[in-house]
Amino acid sequence: MSIKRSLNPPQLLALSFLGLIFLGSILLSTPWAAKDGTTDYLTALFTATSAVCVTGLVVVDTGTHWTMFGQLVILLMIQVGGLGVMSFATFFALLLGKRIQLRQRLIMQQALNQPTMEGIVKIFRYLLFFSFIIEAVAGLVLAIHWVPDMGLPKALWYGIFHSISAFNNAGFDLFGNFTSLTGQTTDLVVNLVISGLFVTGGLGFVVLYEILHYPKTRKLSLHSRMVLITTMLLIGIGFTVILASEYNHALRNLSPGGKILAAYFQAVTPRTAGFNSLELTSLLLSSQLLIMFLMFIGGSPGSTAGGIKTTTFTILWLAIYSILRGKKDTEILGRRIDHREVFRALAIVLLALLLIFLITFLVSLTHEADFTKVLFEVVSAMGTVGLSLGLTTELNDPGKILIMITMFLGRLGPLTIGYALAYDKKQPDVRYPEGKIMIG
Amino acid sequence: MSIKRSLNPPQLLALSFLGLIFLGSILLSTPWAAKDGTTDYLTALFTATSAVCVTGLVVVDTGTHWTMFGQLVILLMIQVGGLGVMSFATFFALLLGKRIQLRQRLIMQQALNQPTMEGIVKIFRYLLFFSFIIEAVAGLVLAIHWVPDMGLPKALWYGIFHSISAFNNAGFDLFGNFTSLTGQTTDLVVNLVISGLFVTGGLGFVVLYEILHYPKTRKLSLHSRMVLITTMLLIGIGFTVILASEYNHALRNLSPGGKILAAYFQAVTPRTAGFNSLELTSLLLSSQLLIMFLMFIGGSPGSTAGGIKTTTFTILWLAIYSILRGKKDTEILGRRIDHREVFRALAIVLLALLLIFLITFLVSLTHEADFTKVLFEVVSAMGTVGLSLGLTTELNDPGKILIMITMFLGRLGPLTIGYALAYDKKQPDVRYPEGKIMIG
Ligand SMILES: [K+]
Ligand SMILES: [K+]
Repeated sequence: MSIKRSLNPPQLLALSFLGLIFLGSILLSTPWAAKDGTTDYLTALFTATSAVCVTGLVVVDTGTHWTMFGQLVILLMIQVGGLGVMSFATFFALLLGKRIQLRQRLIMQQALNQPTMEGIVKIFRYLLFFSFIIEAVAGLVLAIHWVPDMGLPKALWYGIFHSISAFNNAGFDLFGNFTSLTGQTTDLVVNLVISGLFVTGGLGFVVLYEILHYPKTRKLSLHSRMVLITTMLLIGIGFTVILASEYNHALRNLSPGGKILAAYFQAVTPRTAGFNSLELTSLLLSSQLLIMFLMFIGGSPGSTAGGIKTTTFTILWLAIYSILRGKKDTEILGRRIDHREVFRALAIVLLALLLIFLITFLVSLTHEADFTKVLFEVVSAMGTVGLSLGLTTELNDPGKILIMITMFLGRLGPLTIGYALAYDKKQPDVRYPEGKIMIG
Repeated sequence: MSIKRSLNPPQLLALSFLGLIFLGSILLSTPWAAKDGTTDYLTALFTATSAVCVTGLVVVDTGTHWTMFGQLVILLMIQVGGLGVMSFATFFALLLGKRIQLRQRLIMQQALNQPTMEGIVKIFRYLLFFSFIIEAVAGLVLAIHWVPDMGLPKALWYGIFHSISAFNNAGFDLFGNFTSLTGQTTDLVVNLVISGLFVTGGLGFVVLYEILHYPKTRKLSLHSRMVLITTMLLIGIGFTVILASEYNHALRNLSPGGKILAAYFQAVTPRTAGFNSLELTSLLLSSQLLIMFLMFIGGSPGSTAGGIKTTTFTILWLAIYSILRGKKDTEILGRRIDHREVFRALAIVLLALLLIFLITFLVSLTHEADFTKVLFEVVSAMGTVGLSLGLTTELNDPGKILIMITMFLGRLGPLTIGYALAYDKKQPDVRYPEGKIMIG
């Protein structure tokens, strides 16, 4: 058996990510990439990891440190990293066909009705075409909006860069000095186009496909309904709480319309875009906690977003609700959910929590830093969000390496766990007798 | 159907706790309870809640604020609250007999081999007798140790008070100025007797019973082995990490023996005693995080301790391990664990996490406080631990009420959830078809 055949798909994905990060880091450490001479290798590696994992945490400012060549390398890594995971998560099942008994496959078949190999290739082309069209149109809108200020060449480059960065939930920006969109808090076009891109990118291809075909089919799958309901609920809660609690605080200098726009933007960016239009350190501790909570959940499966995913979150609460109601099955909208799905959701959440705890513990061992800052940064890295209270730029080398590892695990973690569990492993021949243990 | 019959046992437990807290708060607000005139009702209520829930968080110092009458009221609440929950958790199943299909009942029957009503009464007497003997002997040892310093009457009172407070994992002390045992960091007798008491109290009656009868039976149940292994593992990790990381920091002024004793004590107290022999604010952030982690887990079921419980924690990791290994069942030591047990453990952990998040969010909304301090205090209240970084004494009224609610929910939460789920509710007649959802 060759090495290639003995690797399973999540391992292949991890390896290709590592290869892409390595290649990008080499390119970024060349003299052509940095404006002032060369970049030290750890900084190049950190940036490459952040780009491939579409996180957006940076130790040097993207707009001022890198040349246009460097920025192009970053943009390509974002595009391959973001669309790569989206395709992988969406098509892994279909591409590998009948050898693997995967629940996603059934969802896709149900949703897309394309079980044949030709169908798969067709859908894959459709996904790429669809993504590029969205990125191009949105990039053009941004460019036209920016032409008066920037002139055509710069506006075009900025339009394309931020469109791709937003659709892939990467959070990289070119506005300089780590400011993200804080200079454009009340710019309606920028806020709506960029948030529109990352929310769309974060819904997942299956959901987008179903929405686009809704006028014809008049039907949304259980999966899509769950994603849409959860997403709207989380955005609604985030928006309301931030608007209410920051009204006379971080939002006090804005007009009523500006307050609404800024509250909305900060409520959507934690799933897991990473752009911010308010200085996050100016927010109340309670708002920062809420943002951590939303970053932990993140976007939806089969999308460019990170986090434990909206469906994982909802399934766990449905399971708890069912348990408290004394029901045998976890139920939603007239369907039951297999208890092994609940177990997978459980594994994803608890492993993410454990990792966040361990990394926070290790970073706080190597740094004299504020706990809020450390935890915020680790949750942000784990969810591939990229929002920051400013820790990343202060990090020493061990700290940078820890955050790099977190970004990588955060990007692959849930996917790898999810797909590793999707195999029907050989069941043990012996089933043990049931043991009794007290809980709680 | 009368009101009494329509209340289920967890509701009865909650109501009797509320009654006890109310009664205690009235007594504590009388002029006989406080040294300087009377105590405001909120302080009396907070103290009563902390005592009944065996937490140990206090807004006024127990040793200096209250008269001996007040301290006696507190001690009685601790004893009734602590032994009450221990008995309830241990005997609820047996007392209610066959009407309820409870897993604990099977464990108890297996362990104690006493399925008849006479047997139950016998075991209940045994539990009380056993607890009082331990408290009396340990109290006497402490009194003898303290006589040279304090004289006989004070030493006796201190011996009894701290023995009962320790065995019930209450964490109340009389040493004044919120110092707990920080004045006796290297006192071997005090450290070993008090930690011996709360570790014993925190193992749970079933485990103690089995250990005591081990010379005869040569047999420990699965439950007891799991409790003992998890407890030793958690203490070992806590001890090693605190000793290593604080060796040249918080422990630097102690002799090597003193370092070991202090690291040991700080490693055991989070399950969920609440005494501390080091000033907790002097510890590294990493050690404070570790203590939060241990406080969250807490002690073992059917004991005087709080937290989500050692078995809950272990079962979840076993479940995750099984999932990652592609096994259908959660297995331990040659037994499988029913998936509904795993779901109960899941519900306990996620509801505890959600509550901690919500209360931390609300406290940080009403207070301009440091996040570490707030989170530490909320986790401590939730696990009925009583360790503090000093927030409780700074709290305003809304903050006090929030922490009171947390202590109450923390004490009843896991129990209530655990027992509510133990009923075999009527299964729905309709079972929904399975729905497919993507996770991760
Ligand atoms: K991001
Ligand atoms: K306690």
